[in-house]
Amino acid sequence: MRERRDPDRLAQAGQLAMLLEVSASPKPGNVDRCHDYPDTRYEDFLASSVAVYPVLMRAASSRARIGRLIFEAVSASKTWHKGGNTHFGAFTLLIPLIIGGGEQKAAHDAVKSTGWEDAIEFYRAAQIAGVRVKPVEDLDLTDPESFDRIKRERLSLYEIFSISASYDLISNEWVNGFPRSFRYAEILRDDVRRLGLNDGIVMTFLRILSESPDTFVAMKFGADVAREVSERARVLTRDFDLDKIKSFDEELIERRINPGSSADIIIASLFIALVRGWI
Amino acid sequence: MRERRDPDRLAQAGQLAMLLEVSASPKPGNVDRCHDYPDTRYEDFLASSVAVYPVLMRAASSRARIGRLIFEAVSASKTWHKGGNTHFGAFTLLIPLIIGGGEQKAAHDAVKSTGWEDAIEFYRAAQIAGVRVKPVEDLDLTDPESFDRIKRERLSLYEIFSISASYDLISNEWVNGFPRSFRYAEILRDDVRRLGLNDGIVMTFLRILSESPDTFVAMKFGADVAREVSERARVLTRDFDLDKIKSFDEELIERRINPGSSADIIIASLFIALVRGWI
Repeated sequence: MRERRDPDRLAQAGQLAMLLEVSASPKPGNVDRCHDYPDTRYEDFLASSVAVYPVLMRAASSRARIGRLIFEAVSASKTWHKGGNTHFGAFTLLIPLIIGGGEQKAAHDAVKSTGWEDAIEFYRAAQIAGVRVKPVEDLDLTDPESFDRIKRERLSLYEIFSISASYDLISNEWVNGFPRSFRYAEILRDDVRRLGLNDGIVMTFLRILSESPDTFVAMKFGADVAREVSERARVLTRDFDLDKIKSFDEELIERRINPGSSADIIIASLFIALVRGWI
Repeated sequence: MRERRDPDRLAQAGQLAMLLEVSASPKPGNVDRCHDYPDTRYEDFLASSVAVYPVLMRAASSRARIGRLIFEAVSASKTWHKGGNTHFGAFTLLIPLIIGGGEQKAAHDAVKSTGWEDAIEFYRAAQIAGVRVKPVEDLDLTDPESFDRIKRERLSLYEIFSISASYDLISNEWVNGFPRSFRYAEILRDDVRRLGLNDGIVMTFLRILSESPDTFVAMKFGADVAREVSERARVLTRDFDLDKIKSFDEELIERRINPGSSADIIIASLFIALVRGWI
């Protein structure tokens, strides 16, 4: 257990999780080692993973608050590439998981202990990351009025995520104690044993995508498209058929449908599996 | 200049150099993002790049001797993957370059100041890395008697590299003050501006390969094959023809010819270009 809490080891597991996720191919609809998007290249994800290491080290040593660390992670990432938002959702999951030393209860405790200062830093981070989120009436991430209300009502980031948990996968992980991240870490272990590293990651990614409509796809294309994509992914989880996965990948890229939230979850699961030595 | 000496920034440039090198594709004959070798996967190179970060940080803070740091780098790399020797030559170049803050004279001074203790650590590192080198009569890397002679005659690593500099690209860089690493950093800057990041790295790699027969290829297949490969690479540097480079790549992979020393040089050049903000 002591080894697991070694800050370098935790930061390294977080960084390798990011690198393995973006490399796994074909990961339907997302940037991977075999294709870029026009504004975001594979290399931007590599640079972002390199950029964030010192911040992950600070998280592992619990040197700052969660909100501050997410802000620092986004700032560092932006300094090293010009590919736009690469890892905002991933940082939001990885940082509390690293603070919690990869342990589920400790990570849940960490997010429950956030305050309004974390919320302010998180909203600032979202602004500089250029995050695209579903516009909401209440505490919209892009509404300057949200800052005043957070301060006035002293709303913690955990409380705010409780509002979005019903439709946002990342918020849901925070509020419910990272259930998907930990469950898919075990599934990933089994898929990797059966299919090897790259194909195992692809398979678990498809399972995550099939279980719940992807938040990011729902935001960009609506709930119907998000459900259709998940339904199509479900068929592909029955057995590993590389040609069918490639066709699905090509179709999603053609339609510019990138299931970013499912990619964030698998980064969290990869981190957990790496810390445990499962992969 | 102060910013360049920031230890995190130097370690990050070293790490990103390793990631960009292994990702650039098609990089004829070598592991890249689109193909593995049976015993060494692309992901092993990612894991090795993650593993070595704390050692690169120690190098950037000049916390240990060069030989010791090379040994630590190889040890860390081996802990994180089972893909055999991924980065031995790269570490041998990167560590003095990082100690020298990316400055040519400082890096040359660093290698000139090595002692016999560095040589002992380097030979130990080569042993655990499972490095394949040309068998030589004098101070063979795999001969246990070499250790005794190094201690007895107090031979510095720099002195030993002076013997191998005539046929080994990496030793040659040490002894002559990293001429190729710095020259190709400038060429890389121009190739990347002209062709973009991935294709620019591929082009500069071909130029390095064409200038001198690859040490690693010469060791595995003899001087004639090494010369033939360099001659073929030279033709491909005339203009960037992706199809022709792909065919050359496929042929070299088929023949198991991997120009590893040229890959080491381009990692050094990538590091220098990244530290200078050229790419």
